[in-house]
Amino acid sequence: MTKFRGVFPYLPTPLRSDGTVNGPVLRAICDDLIGAGVHGLAALGSTGEYAYLDADARAEVVRHTADAAQGRVPVIAGVAATTTREAIRQAKRCKELGADCILLVLESYFPLDERQIESFFLAVADSVALPLLIYTNPQFQKTDLSIDLIERLANHPQIQYVKDASNNTGRLLSIMNRCPELGVFAASSHIPIAVMMLGGLGWMAGPACILPRTSVKLYDLSVAARWGEAAALQRRLWRVNEVFAKFNLAACIKRGLSLQGYDVGLPAQPQSPLSEAAGAEVSDILKEFGELGTRASK
Amino acid sequence: MTKFRGVFPYLPTPLRSDGTVNGPVLRAICDDLIGAGVHGLAALGSTGEYAYLDADARAEVVRHTADAAQGRVPVIAGVAATTTREAIRQAKRCKELGADCILLVLESYFPLDERQIESFFLAVADSVALPLLIYTNPQFQKTDLSIDLIERLANHPQIQYVKDASNNTGRLLSIMNRCPELGVFAASSHIPIAVMMLGGLGWMAGPACILPRTSVKLYDLSVAARWGEAAALQRRLWRVNEVFAKFNLAACIKRGLSLQGYDVGLPAQPQSPLSEAAGAEVSDILKEFGELGTRASK
Amino acid sequence: MTKFRGVFPYLPTPLRSDGTVNGPVLRAICDDLIGAGVHGLAALGSTGEYAYLDADARAEVVRHTADAAQGRVPVIAGVAATTTREAIRQAKRCKELGADCILLVLESYFPLDERQIESFFLAVADSVALPLLIYTNPQFQKTDLSIDLIERLANHPQIQYVKDASNNTGRLLSIMNRCPELGVFAASSHIPIAVMMLGGLGWMAGPACILPRTSVKLYDLSVAARWGEAAALQRRLWRVNEVFAKFNLAACIKRGLSLQGYDVGLPAQPQSPLSEAAGAEVSDILKEFGELGTRASK
Amino acid sequence: MTKFRGVFPYLPTPLRSDGTVNGPVLRAICDDLIGAGVHGLAALGSTGEYAYLDADARAEVVRHTADAAQGRVPVIAGVAATTTREAIRQAKRCKELGADCILLVLESYFPLDERQIESFFLAVADSVALPLLIYTNPQFQKTDLSIDLIERLANHPQIQYVKDASNNTGRLLSIMNRCPELGVFAASSHIPIAVMMLGGLGWMAGPACILPRTSVKLYDLSVAARWGEAAALQRRLWRVNEVFAKFNLAACIKRGLSLQGYDVGLPAQPQSPLSEAAGAEVSDILKEFGELGTRASK
Repeated sequence: MTKFRGVFPYLPTPLRSDGTVNGPVLRAICDDLIGAGVHGLAALGSTGEYAYLDADARAEVVRHTADAAQGRVPVIAGVAATTTREAIRQAKRCKELGADCILLVLESYFPLDERQIESFFLAVADSVALPLLIYTNPQFQKTDLSIDLIERLANHPQIQYVKDASNNTGRLLSIMNRCPELGVFAASSHIPIAVMMLGGLGWMAGPACILPRTSVKLYDLSVAARWGEAAALQRRLWRVNEVFAKFNLAACIKRGLSLQGYDVGLPAQPQSPLSEAAGAEVSDILKEFGELGTRASK
Repeated sequence: MTKFRGVFPYLPTPLRSDGTVNGPVLRAICDDLIGAGVHGLAALGSTGEYAYLDADARAEVVRHTADAAQGRVPVIAGVAATTTREAIRQAKRCKELGADCILLVLESYFPLDERQIESFFLAVADSVALPLLIYTNPQFQKTDLSIDLIERLANHPQIQYVKDASNNTGRLLSIMNRCPELGVFAASSHIPIAVMMLGGLGWMAGPACILPRTSVKLYDLSVAARWGEAAALQRRLWRVNEVFAKFNLAACIKRGLSLQGYDVGLPAQPQSPLSEAAGAEVSDILKEFGELGTRASK
Repeated sequence: MTKFRGVFPYLPTPLRSDGTVNGPVLRAICDDLIGAGVHGLAALGSTGEYAYLDADARAEVVRHTADAAQGRVPVIAGVAATTTREAIRQAKRCKELGADCILLVLESYFPLDERQIESFFLAVADSVALPLLIYTNPQFQKTDLSIDLIERLANHPQIQYVKDASNNTGRLLSIMNRCPELGVFAASSHIPIAVMMLGGLGWMAGPACILPRTSVKLYDLSVAARWGEAAALQRRLWRVNEVFAKFNLAACIKRGLSLQGYDVGLPAQPQSPLSEAAGAEVSDILKEFGELGTRASK
Repeated sequence: MTKFRGVFPYLPTPLRSDGTVNGPVLRAICDDLIGAGVHGLAALGSTGEYAYLDADARAEVVRHTADAAQGRVPVIAGVAATTTREAIRQAKRCKELGADCILLVLESYFPLDERQIESFFLAVADSVALPLLIYTNPQFQKTDLSIDLIERLANHPQIQYVKDASNNTGRLLSIMNRCPELGVFAASSHIPIAVMMLGGLGWMAGPACILPRTSVKLYDLSVAARWGEAAALQRRLWRVNEVFAKFNLAACIKRGLSLQGYDVGLPAQPQSPLSEAAGAEVSDILKEFGELGTRASK
């Protein structure tokens, strides 16, 4: 299989007022994002409120996303669990439902040593015949992966990608130097073009979900090594990352998509929707980049 | 209803090798703990590996515990969720299965403000006709409850107890002063007799599960205000809290119960069982307090 | 030398508007505290703004305190440094100026390993013929001392006391169990009578500086094992610890002493004096305990 | 005055075995660095062990550095203090001794609010007629500066530069967007060419002290927008940042300079010199970049 590359927006999970997943809305979003030129779809990340969904809702999200993609772009599905057994169960189900890659997160409760952490990732890789993207998020998970451990994990033929949601860009450079075979994607805490210039494959991030055309343009400038233009666009575009870091991420995405005409519902309670002032910041950004009303299907 | 008081051991969750809950072993443990004089049973806490169990396994644990208690002592069941909807669903099920009180934990992913946190606790209290114990554990949950918020929550007639798993005993004293109606229990990070002397009702802790007779003796000395003897016993007994803090808590409890003859199985992977050296520390403690082989049923 | 015991108030550092130490005011405070029954004086702690004083001002504080004490009670002087050389220099000077004990703090900048930390404490102990009190404050110093390291340090004949400013009372109990020869004092983050009941020698704390009579009374109740009365007084008195934790510590002490008639000046800038509302809380406490206007000399 | 730009190596503080500053060695290092093409000199940073030096030693360092520079390149001197009064005193002395710019650090002990922090920086700026570089280092200082506060401070005509020692490169981009007049330098926790591409002026870092020629080459590639070559060199050069992050920073620099023939002495105790293995990593890097034996004066 060729390596994944490019812009992978993190999808929201549209929810009805009874808490069920709104499949048709999710499919419309997927279809329009593909139309806007994104290179893949990432379901069940933080942005997609995976932490607020039960097992059935998670499966629904993967099913709708894969069905909407119809093989046009790869679908990466998030799997997060505290036990090895549950992670394997979820990952197998994602494969059955059509995912092309698993983004795997170890949720820890009691502290784990490196040998235990390693056993988790290897057991899932051995059990499910899909490429794996390993992911660490020091803000949300307690178990960080050392670079030594990432280097060992990268020896497994299915562990092919890494995404790091710290804001330490140097950590990504260290990983690139130590694990030349591992594909590195930026998260929205990193500056995408900085990671691209150093050798990254692309980025997986929530902002690309509401600004897909601008994100693809930034990617194209990076690939063409037109760094001056890329930097100028990046500097303007950074404002959206700031807004997403300042407010609830799912609420930002849902407000943005709602402004674009998608009936995505509200973030799961006890989360709240954005305040009016925060919503106006999201609206301003969409207007600035001309991404307020350009979607095909709604 | 009269206030709960005394020693509430945190129960383990005995697991078979296929990951299912071993009900008969759990019932035997409950029966023997009641026989040893404990004043209540606490299911689905950290010690009980609640974070490693799916919804069905959690329900199994509550059902077996309530059935074993047969009303002889109150049963407190842990409910932990990221969404208000799921917490209410779990709490209702615990009530149907026979729990007498809900220990309620808000698991947060994205940060929440105090109003959102308050709405979670009040919504559950309004939906389920059981007393609630609110619980904060800054080591394991990201959302700590301010004392101002605890004071507001304590106005709800069902929010009757608090347990705090920080190691800041002064915080418990502040809560007692501010919320005289709220019953305060110590967690194993606190020194039980210090909390008792200041006005606590008792303690809920893992060590009481493997040292029930010694724990009840310490409680009786405290209630009798025989503080000199209590302090002498507490100083010796503190060693078990040190061991539990040093190693994986579930692994300690499971090793201790295994030494006492219960087939509790291993902690859920990727957790590991205790090393031989750590297991020897647990064994030494059981011997020191004469609690190695005194259980009735096994 | 007999062991130190009892209540050691942390002294403020009265400052004139040109930043110099106001010796006469400091001497009057020392004299009045001794008159109120305190068992020792602690100079150059956090409360004394040691971190805001240069080498000459620190020496002035020790000189005035020792001169005022005139051997009636022991004087403990704080020494804090990043280098071993500077700590020895300061400690020798404190001895020359009349201190009876050194409270020794390792200020770290770059991380240090345990062997390096150990070398610091042992080098000072070997160089200065005074008893040492080792002190850790995880809020203010980056280098915490493990209990294993404290146990090794306690083998040095001059390292005789420990005070821990975490809020983890269980840590003090662990130290007592592991190091029976080491005298343990509570800090104001701990509940004094809890530490006393477990075997502590007393407490060193800022609140005792403005509430000396009440603090001595609490100590006397503890020594007499009148725990019921001690707990009742402790519960009322805890409010002052809460106020001190909520606001700037030096500003609280200086406001309290100012209300009692001492011209202590303001906290060193950029610190600010207490707001009116915070000052009113300090005033209320002094009134509640009848310690607003009982000093002899002013 | 024209804006500072380029590579500013952080200087070590060569110490004799009696703890005094070795001026002739420091002057030789400064002279050789200027010969190697660096654009400025930064004295009394973390690398220069400022936290381990007393007031007289700090003055010595500034005096020797300014004398060696002889106006050929600008000299930036570090000032760090807990009190406003002491910071002004140090800054005035640095100006008298010939510094061209003050790197100003607020060392906090008790927490400070934003108004207090702001007062510190403004008071120093108002008192000393030199440009100021504000600096935050969340690893070493407790007081971080919010971007809102940086924006307000940047209105003062003398507050002209910022350097941030977090590893959050996005924070630098936010500062650039919000404060277009403020010159931004990278620290060694950031990837220099990423900061350059986004609009930075250069970098101030310890590694440039032992790899001056390679650092200047990287800067020249960046200025020429030869990003492909810059990225290739940056990826190789990142190894030195990794080594510096892994071991004691002052010990790394001193080992490197010692290998280059400078008698810089050892880090101040209780710090230790590098282990043999760590020293070999430094040696390998110097060899790889051909910077082991190229200094003029020794």
